[in-house]
Amino acid sequence: MVFMRFRPQVIFSSLCSPKPRTSSPSATLAAAAARRRHTTSVATSMAAPSEDALRRALAERQAAVDAQGEAVRALKAGGGASKAEVDAAVEALKALKVEAGAAARRLQQSVGAGPGGAAREEMRQAVVNTLERKLFYIPSFKIYRGVAGLYDYGPPGCRVKANVLSFWRQVTPAFRLEHFVLEENMLEVDCPCVTPEVVLKASGHVEKFTDLMVKDEKTGTCYRADHLLKDFCKEKLEKDLTLPQQKADEFKRILAILDDLSAEELGAKIKEYGIVAPDTKNPLSDPYPFNLMFQTSIGPTGLSVGYMRPETAQGIFVNFKDLYYYNGQKLPFAAAQIGQAFRNEISPRQGLLRVREFTLAEIEHFVDPEDKSHPKFVDVADLEFLMFPRELQLSGDSAKSMKLGDAVSKGTVNNETLGYFIGRVYLFLTCLGIDKARLRFRQHLPNEMAHYAADCWDAEIECSYGWIECVGIADRSAYDLKAHSEKSGVPLVAHEKFSKPKEKLVIVPSKKDLGLAFKGNQKMVVEALEAMSEKEALEMKAALESKGETTFKVCTLGKDVVITKKMVSISMEKKMEHQRVFTPSVIEPSFGIGRIIYCLFEHSFYTRPSKSEEEQLNVFRFPPLVAPIKCTVFPLVKNQEFDDAAKLIAKALTTAAISHIIDTTAISIGRRYARTDEIGVPFAVTVDSTTSVTIRERDSKEQIRVGIDEVASVVKQLTEGQSTWADVSAKYPAHVGPQGDQE
Amino acid sequence: MVFMRFRPQVIFSSLCSPKPRTSSPSATLAAAAARRRHTTSVATSMAAPSEDALRRALAERQAAVDAQGEAVRALKAGGGASKAEVDAAVEALKALKVEAGAAARRLQQSVGAGPGGAAREEMRQAVVNTLERKLFYIPSFKIYRGVAGLYDYGPPGCRVKANVLSFWRQVTPAFRLEHFVLEENMLEVDCPCVTPEVVLKASGHVEKFTDLMVKDEKTGTCYRADHLLKDFCKEKLEKDLTLPQQKADEFKRILAILDDLSAEELGAKIKEYGIVAPDTKNPLSDPYPFNLMFQTSIGPTGLSVGYMRPETAQGIFVNFKDLYYYNGQKLPFAAAQIGQAFRNEISPRQGLLRVREFTLAEIEHFVDPEDKSHPKFVDVADLEFLMFPRELQLSGDSAKSMKLGDAVSKGTVNNETLGYFIGRVYLFLTCLGIDKARLRFRQHLPNEMAHYAADCWDAEIECSYGWIECVGIADRSAYDLKAHSEKSGVPLVAHEKFSKPKEKLVIVPSKKDLGLAFKGNQKMVVEALEAMSEKEALEMKAALESKGETTFKVCTLGKDVVITKKMVSISMEKKMEHQRVFTPSVIEPSFGIGRIIYCLFEHSFYTRPSKSEEEQLNVFRFPPLVAPIKCTVFPLVKNQEFDDAAKLIAKALTTAAISHIIDTTAISIGRRYARTDEIGVPFAVTVDSTTSVTIRERDSKEQIRVGIDEVASVVKQLTEGQSTWADVSAKYPAHVGPQGDQE
Repeated sequence: MVFMRFRPQVIFSSLCSPKPRTSSPSATLAAAAARRRHTTSVATSMAAPSEDALRRALAERQAAVDAQGEAVRALKAGGGASKAEVDAAVEALKALKVEAGAAARRLQQSVGAGPGGAAREEMRQAVVNTLERKLFYIPSFKIYRGVAGLYDYGPPGCRVKANVLSFWRQVTPAFRLEHFVLEENMLEVDCPCVTPEVVLKASGHVEKFTDLMVKDEKTGTCYRADHLLKDFCKEKLEKDLTLPQQKADEFKRILAILDDLSAEELGAKIKEYGIVAPDTKNPLSDPYPFNLMFQTSIGPTGLSVGYMRPETAQGIFVNFKDLYYYNGQKLPFAAAQIGQAFRNEISPRQGLLRVREFTLAEIEHFVDPEDKSHPKFVDVADLEFLMFPRELQLSGDSAKSMKLGDAVSKGTVNNETLGYFIGRVYLFLTCLGIDKARLRFRQHLPNEMAHYAADCWDAEIECSYGWIECVGIADRSAYDLKAHSEKSGVPLVAHEKFSKPKEKLVIVPSKKDLGLAFKGNQKMVVEALEAMSEKEALEMKAALESKGETTFKVCTLGKDVVITKKMVSISMEKKMEHQRVFTPSVIEPSFGIGRIIYCLFEHSFYTRPSKSEEEQLNVFRFPPLVAPIKCTVFPLVKNQEFDDAAKLIAKALTTAAISHIIDTTAISIGRRYARTDEIGVPFAVTVDSTTSVTIRERDSKEQIRVGIDEVASVVKQLTEGQSTWADVSAKYPAHVGPQGDQE
Repeated sequence: MVFMRFRPQVIFSSLCSPKPRTSSPSATLAAAAARRRHTTSVATSMAAPSEDALRRALAERQAAVDAQGEAVRALKAGGGASKAEVDAAVEALKALKVEAGAAARRLQQSVGAGPGGAAREEMRQAVVNTLERKLFYIPSFKIYRGVAGLYDYGPPGCRVKANVLSFWRQVTPAFRLEHFVLEENMLEVDCPCVTPEVVLKASGHVEKFTDLMVKDEKTGTCYRADHLLKDFCKEKLEKDLTLPQQKADEFKRILAILDDLSAEELGAKIKEYGIVAPDTKNPLSDPYPFNLMFQTSIGPTGLSVGYMRPETAQGIFVNFKDLYYYNGQKLPFAAAQIGQAFRNEISPRQGLLRVREFTLAEIEHFVDPEDKSHPKFVDVADLEFLMFPRELQLSGDSAKSMKLGDAVSKGTVNNETLGYFIGRVYLFLTCLGIDKARLRFRQHLPNEMAHYAADCWDAEIECSYGWIECVGIADRSAYDLKAHSEKSGVPLVAHEKFSKPKEKLVIVPSKKDLGLAFKGNQKMVVEALEAMSEKEALEMKAALESKGETTFKVCTLGKDVVITKKMVSISMEKKMEHQRVFTPSVIEPSFGIGRIIYCLFEHSFYTRPSKSEEEQLNVFRFPPLVAPIKCTVFPLVKNQEFDDAAKLIAKALTTAAISHIIDTTAISIGRRYARTDEIGVPFAVTVDSTTSVTIRERDSKEQIRVGIDEVASVVKQLTEGQSTWADVSAKYPAHVGPQGDQE
């Protein structure tokens, strides 16, 4: 077992964990401020450059109004002014008020509380209403008034989810877009949700998977401390338009560093601003950490603590040894898992985005830390999309379109394997229908990452809640395997056999000298010295030979120590090594399936007027890959012949494995189209004769006429991507007839 | 909302719940004894008729041995006998001992502790070893010494599971065997595992989902009380061959009624037999109920109790109203759910069959209680398979092959819908590869069912653990919807609109007279009267008119009461009804996916000697539908040309969506065949030239030669069932060559 030099600060797969709390937040304020501006909310990120100016302009206009008001009063009170003079002054005051009103509206719009925010809110309401009415989602246990943060997928939602997961797992090979599991020959596993405490102690979740909470001191109601402070600051910034610039800056700074505040700092701010419980106005307790795992007890004794897993990754890590052997002891290889994960949110908000139970799809790609190249990187190197590297975030710029190959060759993305997965995630999301313009890959800033992590990128999708992290792609180095090796005593390592034996590095700390120098800390210094890499050891050897001493960082002590020549002997021994034993690095793409699906719903949703223009009709523009049902069959009018023809077509569609429904209700064809547009069915077959029928494409509403025995094969080509609508439109006659859209 | 006349005794979907405990087990001893003989263990069920005779025979032989031994001693002690006489007597004693030994072996074999039992045990070990070595399963958290009752699916197991679920859900339409979800247009939902207490109080799980537990009084170790008693009785029956007949009968009777014993009765037996803790021999506590749900707490306050769901069904029931509207307010319709369920076993045994977390696939088919016909029943009516109705169980017979249509028309199976699902379950299981001869449908005996249940059948599969319940198919009547209606206050009902209005039944209890007669119980009698069906009410009306009074069972009181004429007025009113409001019945097929898969592994497993006959090779005869990988590609020898050809074939297989692996290791082709036989790969392509290759079928080991550009399409036909091996063997030349099996 390779000894761990660093006792790492625990950080989690970013999708299902709080950001690390740095011990001295002030040190990273500037960076964090820059970062937050681009992540916390759309409002802050999109309007930051002009907001100050708008606020100044408003203050000036307001001052002018005040001055003019004063002048009018003075004129009236003095009595010496003519009516014309007073009228002119009043007119001027009115004009200034109009200007001030306009400035206030501009500011309001800019900070997100105005019409822009309202439009987003309205759009979200329209999507969510449609989703709930059509049973894409149902608040769980609704007849019992539900439970916050728990949602069911109803029938169409369930199919969308199954389609997304099949695509992820490549059970839908007909689409020819090979995705994760099969393409990579990944080893899929399926582990239980119930997890014993020891595993989550090793991973760090028992200690650190927490949010800070405050309690209403009278009712005991719990709130997330950062949410209350955030709401307070946002409310001030959005509603109090006369806020002095200095205060506005302070609130903005708090919003930017919110995630980095300690319990004490959060508590102090809550006290300073007099924030009380929102529901009762009662005073609040000091903030304290609340573990977000659902706890339970395994077996009947009550002695064996268990948790519902907060991520699926740990199930893979603990199986590393078996999987490595299963893979013929070869690296790299990847394991994958799809499953439920749990997070006992203090007070879930953001509707479908922040829930207490969710489906994760995670990949753990194990790789030799000394070789992170990827043979298939060339396949994605030419992709070009929005990337948001550290430098752009720190300089206040926005995301830029970059070629992935360049990002890797310039070192913006740490290595090819990480780059490869970024490319695959991009393809995966855009194939599903995520809008390229509202998808960006944001690199974590140094203070967001664990010190052991080599690099980390989030696929963020913009929706009505702002930019939402939907996939995390992290190079987590050897952290997880080392943690489980240490805790379990089972070495989770890989071997590289040398074709020729190599010389071996030997590090011999002098325990006596170290003991004299470091007393009780001797053991930690010894362990850190023994765990040095070859490169570090040779550098130390050189320094000791030239200068006699050198400083050395011992992470377990959290400080640098001075090492002198007699404290350690470093040499390349003649004793040969026949293999290298090492802990693999892991590169982890982790997909929040529910978040991806929700963003997909927002990106796919639009409304268009009905034919009569009396109402707005809802449409989801799902690609066939995602659509819950690929095709509907409508007899134009109710008669036996058409019904029989419809059944014949349905049978052919079943044989062709196209999911479909027949709607033989007597309502107008336009209504029936509208009904299926609303659940995103891409193609509708209307039976208006017994020899040929029409096929209608959902978004263009165009129709073509096709022989009844060809329908199934045309729909199959369309839904499986062998033909586009343009292809079939060129081949078959267009249809413009009485059964056109009548909505 | 229809009021519930019965406060039902709570019974659960049988897969995930203990059997109901009847309040007076002695009343049903005979029936239960008969039932248990056929269900509890293979040993008891298969050997019952001859075991008594064998036991008698052994006792006779043993008595003869004892008598002869006595005679020999007497001869020797008397001193008067000649050596020849003594020798003859000793010889006779030896012969009798041999006979007694043979009788003991026959008995041993019959009770399952002898070679038969050992063979089953050995077979199970061979299967389980192969499954664990090939990572079909991995004991979860193995590096931390695991947790009893938790298993991971490793890579091949995970694919088998995905294949089974896809087939269940019909995501594999290429197989043309349409199964559950798509075929029936079922409404699939996906609900959370975390469930608030109120839901599981309504369903009865909080109160009754328990097993009886005893504790080691010193160490606190917990045991299932019935397991300890069962082990004791089985041990006595199997090992103590001199057990008097009377005692043997007593132990057998206990085994038969084990599930029906109350806590007091179990405790009394444990005391009577002096059963102690198996590990420590310490005394045991009295038995007490332990709830099998994993409990947790939702949200941060600790006040909101939640459980990990013990079944997925409740998530469907609470959504009935929305689903009924979604289905256009039409009955019948079915909803389905696949998901994890949890059961905190006291001390899990039976390896992979009794686990603490498992995947269920459940269907809730909602139907008008007055019309349980099914339009597709004709499609399954001609199926013929092993059925084990009540009567056969009670008369001590075994399961018989019956035609499903006959079973329904004779009333053996209660209704067509139930029969239809039995047929579909039969097709589903046998398509997966379950052996028809080891599959039976066993009807629940009256004492196993809730009184409200109309009928209930289990698909039981025989494996090394005996007959295992793998799918439950129950007509649960209106119980579940009524329970949630009552608890939530939301009516979960359906409506039938009459084409012509009908006369309405009016029941008016006289509260005054009932109050005088029943005092505090008046309310329950009133409710029971109001809840009568039309038929019951008209019978009561007739009885009251003819006799002036009648007895009436009030379930909520648990007794009959006498109702007189003045206590209730019953009439058909002129006021017309335009619709009927009723609670639908639910027919529930509930699939234990893990159990099905485990039985499938046992049924698919066999061994055959290697070519050299030096070792036994393991094979899983999975049908292509189930096989984790459909095809392997082997270059016969390592060279660039063959490797290139193999890659070409692999690419064609990818395009054809056939999962496959290439094995280019330099080991012998025979070894490579053996390696893939062991994970059940049905076809192997061996590249031995650059123009044509061979395809080998796993079970026959036959090979055909096929042109390199045809391989993918031939394998596709074979794996998707369009061609059989016989078909392609007739079409392509057989290959018998040097690369034949060399194992």
